[in-house]
Amino acid sequence: MKYFNFIFLLVLTLEISAQSDAENIKKIYSQSLTDGKSYEWLRHLSNNIGARLSGSYGAEQAVAYTKEELEKLGLDKVWLQPVMVPKWIRGLPEFAYIETKQGKTTHVNICALGGSVETPNGGVRAQVVEVMGIDELKALGKDRVQGKIVFFNRPMQADLINTFEAYGGCSDQRYSGAYEAGKLGAVGVIVRSLNLRLDDFPHTGSMTYADLPVSQRIPSAAISTNDAELLSTMLALDPSLSFFFKQNCQQLDDVLSYNVIGEITGSEFPEEYIVVGGHLDSWDLGDGSHDDGAGVVQSMDVLRLLKISGITPKRSIRVVLFMNEENGLRGGKKYAEIAKSKNEKHIFALESDSGGFTPRGFSFDCSDAQFQKVLGWKELFKPYLIHYFEKGGSGADIGPLKSDGIVLAGLRPDSQRYFDHHHAANDTFDAVNKRELELGAATMASLVYLFDTYGTAVEITNDTFKD
Amino acid sequence: MKYFNFIFLLVLTLEISAQSDAENIKKIYSQSLTDGKSYEWLRHLSNNIGARLSGSYGAEQAVAYTKEELEKLGLDKVWLQPVMVPKWIRGLPEFAYIETKQGKTTHVNICALGGSVETPNGGVRAQVVEVMGIDELKALGKDRVQGKIVFFNRPMQADLINTFEAYGGCSDQRYSGAYEAGKLGAVGVIVRSLNLRLDDFPHTGSMTYADLPVSQRIPSAAISTNDAELLSTMLALDPSLSFFFKQNCQQLDDVLSYNVIGEITGSEFPEEYIVVGGHLDSWDLGDGSHDDGAGVVQSMDVLRLLKISGITPKRSIRVVLFMNEENGLRGGKKYAEIAKSKNEKHIFALESDSGGFTPRGFSFDCSDAQFQKVLGWKELFKPYLIHYFEKGGSGADIGPLKSDGIVLAGLRPDSQRYFDHHHAANDTFDAVNKRELELGAATMASLVYLFDTYGTAVEITNDTFKD
Repeated sequence: MKYFNFIFLLVLTLEISAQSDAENIKKIYSQSLTDGKSYEWLRHLSNNIGARLSGSYGAEQAVAYTKEELEKLGLDKVWLQPVMVPKWIRGLPEFAYIETKQGKTTHVNICALGGSVETPNGGVRAQVVEVMGIDELKALGKDRVQGKIVFFNRPMQADLINTFEAYGGCSDQRYSGAYEAGKLGAVGVIVRSLNLRLDDFPHTGSMTYADLPVSQRIPSAAISTNDAELLSTMLALDPSLSFFFKQNCQQLDDVLSYNVIGEITGSEFPEEYIVVGGHLDSWDLGDGSHDDGAGVVQSMDVLRLLKISGITPKRSIRVVLFMNEENGLRGGKKYAEIAKSKNEKHIFALESDSGGFTPRGFSFDCSDAQFQKVLGWKELFKPYLIHYFEKGGSGADIGPLKSDGIVLAGLRPDSQRYFDHHHAANDTFDAVNKRELELGAATMASLVYLFDTYGTAVEITNDTFKD
Repeated sequence: MKYFNFIFLLVLTLEISAQSDAENIKKIYSQSLTDGKSYEWLRHLSNNIGARLSGSYGAEQAVAYTKEELEKLGLDKVWLQPVMVPKWIRGLPEFAYIETKQGKTTHVNICALGGSVETPNGGVRAQVVEVMGIDELKALGKDRVQGKIVFFNRPMQADLINTFEAYGGCSDQRYSGAYEAGKLGAVGVIVRSLNLRLDDFPHTGSMTYADLPVSQRIPSAAISTNDAELLSTMLALDPSLSFFFKQNCQQLDDVLSYNVIGEITGSEFPEEYIVVGGHLDSWDLGDGSHDDGAGVVQSMDVLRLLKISGITPKRSIRVVLFMNEENGLRGGKKYAEIAKSKNEKHIFALESDSGGFTPRGFSFDCSDAQFQKVLGWKELFKPYLIHYFEKGGSGADIGPLKSDGIVLAGLRPDSQRYFDHHHAANDTFDAVNKRELELGAATMASLVYLFDTYGTAVEITNDTFKD
């Protein structure tokens, strides 16, 4: 009978808390969709400030603007966390054309990859070797690569449902292409843009020369998917055609920048931290609305939504707007370094850096037992059509926080349109839908609310009751 | 032992068929994403033909084009099903402004509602009564409505996650507003566009005068959401302002048009029919890419995807491109009437008429037992992030097929952006994403494949084994 009462009370308690969780989550979604701030913040960040590459004036303005806006929210603390960041500039617009052996030229759309060196003053002109990847390049060997421009043309795989998987399957060409081709004596690298759509936008992104001596560092650019198709077709007809490109980019000395941080201090466990964030920097083409203006304003609104929904966090909730995710990850590393040096106990970190599209769920980097606990909350998200709870990666900026016990998570929005805009001039405000952005902010706030309420400690399971 | 063998064989059979179902579905998705035709068909339908209101030249061209394209697929039969349809024309562009008592005028964006009468030659000018719905209008009574323009301004509810619910909660203003206001002696009706976004596009749509005598039929128009906000704000400052609008639309005599039908005749049960369809007509603003060009081309591709995936349907699969969903549903009614007169046994019908966005799942109109059977297939869709299997409505065009035994279903894509474009000039090809469209076609083809393979008969359940 005593046992029965215990069960009864347990069930009753679970029911009451489940009910109030459902109500609180409903309030959060409703507030976001009727009184959200994320879209208005993004409008300013995108249209009034624009591109925010680390070390740029835009990045500086974005730091000032988001700090000011967080200060208006009445959080317990708002501060800047200094961090030295790389500064790379694009310089004059890139210029490229294909030239047939008859001397006819066709202009093509390229952009320098972030971190690339410039071309010599007169540009680079050479014959082209088309390869489908780094393995194929290596197999060609020095003889057939020396003095040539290497054209990496492996397209993203269209029949993968998750477009991030398709991205992951091709990004080595962009990141390591110049390194590998430089070792073989190539004079330049042209990479097919990481875009599933056929269009005219070249997509930039980070690349490395690793340990390559300066003399072997060759200029590297992305070419639009339409022009990659064109170049490939023309090469099939005339393998001896030449390609010309000129770019003016430069790596300058590191400069001082900041992570922007705001905190609601916990009412019961102030020394336990929950982080929600996105990255404040963007590439210099477009205005970084999806990557990652969306994640920035959603993260800011998480704290605001909790406040206006009348939720008093037990734990300390921090919004962290990381600087320099795109070409260095210095902000993410700095935040983790300081947190470690201060011995701050971080229990949960959530990043939104996959675009501002309709949220579908989360990917969790945690133990199996913690994941089971999280799965117990999934039903609460069903009314909001959030269905994707899977183990997997989280986000680049929060990665350095990884340690035993912490749960890391990434928001997973619908991914179909993301790479149409990613790192390109069309990553702009008009490509973001207000409701989709707001649904993302509410989904994040709801998960933060649950982690704040229940923590990450793994509770007694049914097994505990076994003899 | 015999019992054990039976179970063993059953499990083995189920496993083998489940495996080949998974493989077939994978093939369907892969074909759609790498070799789909839906996007190219839609490009032609949207950009080369354009708007397709019943009775228009566009509708006529769309009939010819889709018939021709279906004929290219090598189906067993392709034919046109004659149907008389209403013909309403917009005439000259509408014109409207707000005039303050000081005589200052502000232009606003309106469009006639489909089926509306024209204004008198000199337009309509009157004071405005703003109401939040039909109940509020009725409560005002004849005295306060007579001689006025009634302005229905109830917005779609932003905190409903399913935007179709928000649409359903407001569409009575558009559909019955002029009928109700006409009965009370109003001289015109202006309805806030059914759009969750604030922008400048007026959204048309169907309306009724029901049994109202011609003398009481008043002109009715939609106003953009931005201008609805403006009008409401100006009315709050000056309730005596006047509103002017002029429109030139006309209802003409019915004309002959067609449903376009293609069929793969079943190899085992040719007399059992499965229908997949969308509607070929669209409103006259924009080019009807989402509503319902998307559904048309997806449905066409369902049959093509089955063929190129090497699937030989056991049952007869028909694609039906219905005419006149928007303002009469004549095509849907005609198809059902003919099917009934021929005693054709339809077991399943699926409609795509909710936009070409990322598919999330289906809504099923069927018995509980049939729904349980369908739920058994849900896991097969998980790799494609299809998670929404719920009971509910299906589609307007297939509705008239409803009878005992048939399963009706509607594709349910992500709904967040749909009403940004619905019935407005921005329902255009550029708003459709190729991959999202193709995922929808594959999702539909996969469900059709399963219904073809397993039928709709409810099989023996576990209960059958009970003593």
